Amino acid sequence: MTYCVALRLNGGLIFMSDTRTNAGVDNISTVKKMFTWNTSGERTLTLMTAGNLATTQAVISLLEERTVSPDERQPAFLAAPTMFQVARLIGETLKEVIRHQTSNGKESEAPYRATIILGGQIRGMTPRLFLIYPEGNFIEATDETPFFQSGEMKYGRPILLRCFDPAMSFEQATKLLCLSFDPTLRANLGVGMPLDLMTYAADSFTMGHQHRFEDSDPYFHDVSARWRDALKTALDRLPDYPFTD
Amino acid sequence: MTYCVALRLNGGLIFMSDTRTNAGVDNISTVKKMFTWNTSGERTLTLMTAGNLATTQAVISLLEERTVSPDERQPAFLAAPTMFQVARLIGETLKEVIRHQTSNGKESEAPYRATIILGGQIRGMTPRLFLIYPEGNFIEATDETPFFQSGEMKYGRPILLRCFDPAMSFEQATKLLCLSFDPTLRANLGVGMPLDLMTYAADSFTMGHQHRFEDSDPYFHDVSARWRDALKTALDRLPDYPFTD
Repeated sequence: MTYCVALRLNGGLIFMSDTRTNAGVDNISTVKKMFTWNTSGERTLTLMTAGNLATTQAVISLLEERTVSPDERQPAFLAAPTMFQVARLIGETLKEVIRHQTSNGKESEAPYRATIILGGQIRGMTPRLFLIYPEGNFIEATDETPFFQSGEMKYGRPILLRCFDPAMSFEQATKLLCLSFDPTLRANLGVGMPLDLMTYAADSFTMGHQHRFEDSDPYFHDVSARWRDALKTALDRLPDYPFTD
Repeated sequence: MTYCVALRLNGGLIFMSDTRTNAGVDNISTVKKMFTWNTSGERTLTLMTAGNLATTQAVISLLEERTVSPDERQPAFLAAPTMFQVARLIGETLKEVIRHQTSNGKESEAPYRATIILGGQIRGMTPRLFLIYPEGNFIEATDETPFFQSGEMKYGRPILLRCFDPAMSFEQATKLLCLSFDPTLRANLGVGMPLDLMTYAADSFTMGHQHRFEDSDPYFHDVSARWRDALKTALDRLPDYPFTD
């Protein structure tokens, strides 16, 4: 399992992902699921992957053209003229990897499926955020749907729906993301620390703040504990249900 | 889809269930998923069902012996000597219905599956709470696991894990349950109003408070709105993440 979230803020984009990968509960490892590319002030792209690890690693390798020698690589997604074209190219790569893995093999595509969140900006255009499906098609974040989640998204969704505001600062958004990850980490062993965070400030064309929240991260523990206390206090203050019969 | 929760409190048991049943998003109906039986001060039993409606209705009908004429009915689960025996009998009935529906029919049992939450008390023993699986086996609530959910349980789980306290009054527990249902109703169209509530006070051997929360219920709307405001206020008061780089 996995949990990844990306928010589209007025000030740019923010990404957070866990790092746990597991085959059963007795075979767990840590892998980075967040990947960023910068091309000299012209574009900044960030991907977060969820799903079959062999699939997502193959997609990243193919996007980076690791099939050819390093000096011959000219990754097409770093040259595509628009974010829409970048999303299409990544979607096609994802679909192709899944098709390749299922051909002459297992009939069900499900075990090889993966989903990708793509966010970034190309000079001259605004920052954009996409959710790319295993079928290769994708949707884009809008004012009505300003964030995407993938993987184990249900536990951490209510707080996003209730408290997300596109006017948030990166500092406020990081706090919100910590509180979306906290119940998910508690409920699903397939989602695990450390967590990777990255911000992208609009029109900066460079990676923003980066942080890896380790198991012992004092801010994460402090804000989670305070949140639990605040919830209990808030609950106590609400009126109890008045039984009348 | 469905959402049902039962809590084991020091003062007794409390049950809440939605009433939506659907075959696709374009075919929805309202059905009661909570059933209670009282036998003249000797036992009070409550069931909540989740899963295939044909399966759960058949189980209720078989438990009530609707296969024989009303004057000949002597439902075995109303005579079983312990709650454990009641749970076993209901589990066997559930398993048998699923087996019957799949025999000579579709191979997969999944579409006919159902899960049952059973709570109640028999005189001379303490109130007990069980979760019965489609396989007919079951688990019982303990001090470490003092509540059960079935159906679409993930959205409403974090608040239960954070705020449940067995010392709660029924009035406080009803408030908590409303706040567990609120995000679930917002996130999954397969869970819908009205909601049924029932309490059972330990050693009362009679049904306690009952209430149906309709779409327009003023308490539900008030407490949900206040909760959203309280969450936003609590979030604002927590320290934002301090980026240091």
